[in-house]
Amino acid sequence: MDRAALVDLIRRKRSLLCVGLDTEQHLVPEHFQHERHPVRAYNEAIVEATHDLAVAYKLNLAFYEALGVDGWEDLEATIAYIRSRGDVFIIADAKRGDIGNTARKYAEAFFDRLGVDAVTIAPYMGRDSITPFLGNPGRWAVVLGVTSNAGALDFQFLPTDPSGTPLFERVMRDVASWGSPQDTMFVVGATRTEVLARARAIAPDHFFLVPGVGAQGGDLQAVLDATLTVDGGLLINSSRGILYAGTGPEAIPAARQAAEALRAAMEPALRAKGVI
Amino acid sequence: MDRAALVDLIRRKRSLLCVGLDTEQHLVPEHFQHERHPVRAYNEAIVEATHDLAVAYKLNLAFYEALGVDGWEDLEATIAYIRSRGDVFIIADAKRGDIGNTARKYAEAFFDRLGVDAVTIAPYMGRDSITPFLGNPGRWAVVLGVTSNAGALDFQFLPTDPSGTPLFERVMRDVASWGSPQDTMFVVGATRTEVLARARAIAPDHFFLVPGVGAQGGDLQAVLDATLTVDGGLLINSSRGILYAGTGPEAIPAARQAAEALRAAMEPALRAKGVI
Repeated sequence: MDRAALVDLIRRKRSLLCVGLDTEQHLVPEHFQHERHPVRAYNEAIVEATHDLAVAYKLNLAFYEALGVDGWEDLEATIAYIRSRGDVFIIADAKRGDIGNTARKYAEAFFDRLGVDAVTIAPYMGRDSITPFLGNPGRWAVVLGVTSNAGALDFQFLPTDPSGTPLFERVMRDVASWGSPQDTMFVVGATRTEVLARARAIAPDHFFLVPGVGAQGGDLQAVLDATLTVDGGLLINSSRGILYAGTGPEAIPAARQAAEALRAAMEPALRAKGVI
Repeated sequence: MDRAALVDLIRRKRSLLCVGLDTEQHLVPEHFQHERHPVRAYNEAIVEATHDLAVAYKLNLAFYEALGVDGWEDLEATIAYIRSRGDVFIIADAKRGDIGNTARKYAEAFFDRLGVDAVTIAPYMGRDSITPFLGNPGRWAVVLGVTSNAGALDFQFLPTDPSGTPLFERVMRDVASWGSPQDTMFVVGATRTEVLARARAIAPDHFFLVPGVGAQGGDLQAVLDATLTVDGGLLINSSRGILYAGTGPEAIPAARQAAEALRAAMEPALRAKGVI
């Protein structure tokens, strides 16, 4: 999906919501456990209940790989189901990153084989680990900038020059120069409110994928205030806050309610900024 | 496999060789293309021809994920086959790295589900992305230190303090402090001969996984001179240099010959250092 289509989707759905399908088999509600493929069945029910509210779904590969071949089948089936429900942006949250010939294989795995719109990439190995994901029309590399976890403080904020430019800023600036706002997004964690404005200044035209709202404690309004752009420029992810909003028979209605609450909380900012 | 068993294997096989199974379906020789699972069949033939020479096999996940569910089946079957051939160390070259709850899932996927001994990890997300892989007896995190590709120069050599400590040194020092030489290895590329001694000084007791000998042009003798320790301390990988050493019916004998040539080139240094 290209940028124009993504922005159109944001305007039509009045939403920046990305629903994270970090689905754990043992947390799937009881009445889905009797299905032949509980994770897949739960994902489909979540998608069915939220696809008018979400512009994107993000599948966290770890949760599928932990189930081996069955998990990879769940992944492919979930992606096919999401596609069957109409226009939506699909992200493989895979944090890949390897030497050029291997990065090309990962691009093939995610873009050609799985058919997702975007894949998350770790930048440590530099340019040739990222460029194979760029320049594919309608496909995106979502590169880690500043992440939402505690460990973000270990390396991402190290000063990299005499003026103290933190590593994440250097990464974002360099990576932005290798691609364009048509093929590159950045992961910018919602929990680091003190650096949101700085991240937006470095990449004024790039979409940010923002994890950390919800279970991780990030502040939605701070994210919107500092990083919303005139065409949206954000995909704001919630995973556990939606998947596990309720339990038992209440899981699906509670998931929809949580998704709608997040979407509704975004709408005033979308109006104020003139996005819609 | 714990460190004592790995060192014992190095001594028994007089080898530091890791064979990289970056197997591409279209490069598998003609007479394997008729098999039901060409990648798996070729991997099995390569393992059969080299397992007395290799202490480790490294499976590059990208090449399996590019085949979807079939690729994941090839991966599981190849691991089972390697296990059936006796003692050998198995590495999933996956370059994973994510927030704590996801890193725990990746540890489950690789250690519990796939049953490999080690998994490669990218350090950008810091401590909670790495610690879930540590402290599991006989299991290893192989964390990127300084890589063999051109893009290593983009971020890994940035100065991170007034004395100019490059990022990779800071990463290796911090990561070494989170685990121990019993559960942590580092990726140190053979193509960066100028920093090999520095990497060894930072982590004198850690095993290094060394890619880049062969197709990438790294210098085996420079690696041995700068980083070999009294118990070996190295797994030296060759992928394309072995997998594609010959073509057609010559592929398997040529692979064995290439593996034996590499092993034999290591043996004098192992003797000189007193490893064997």
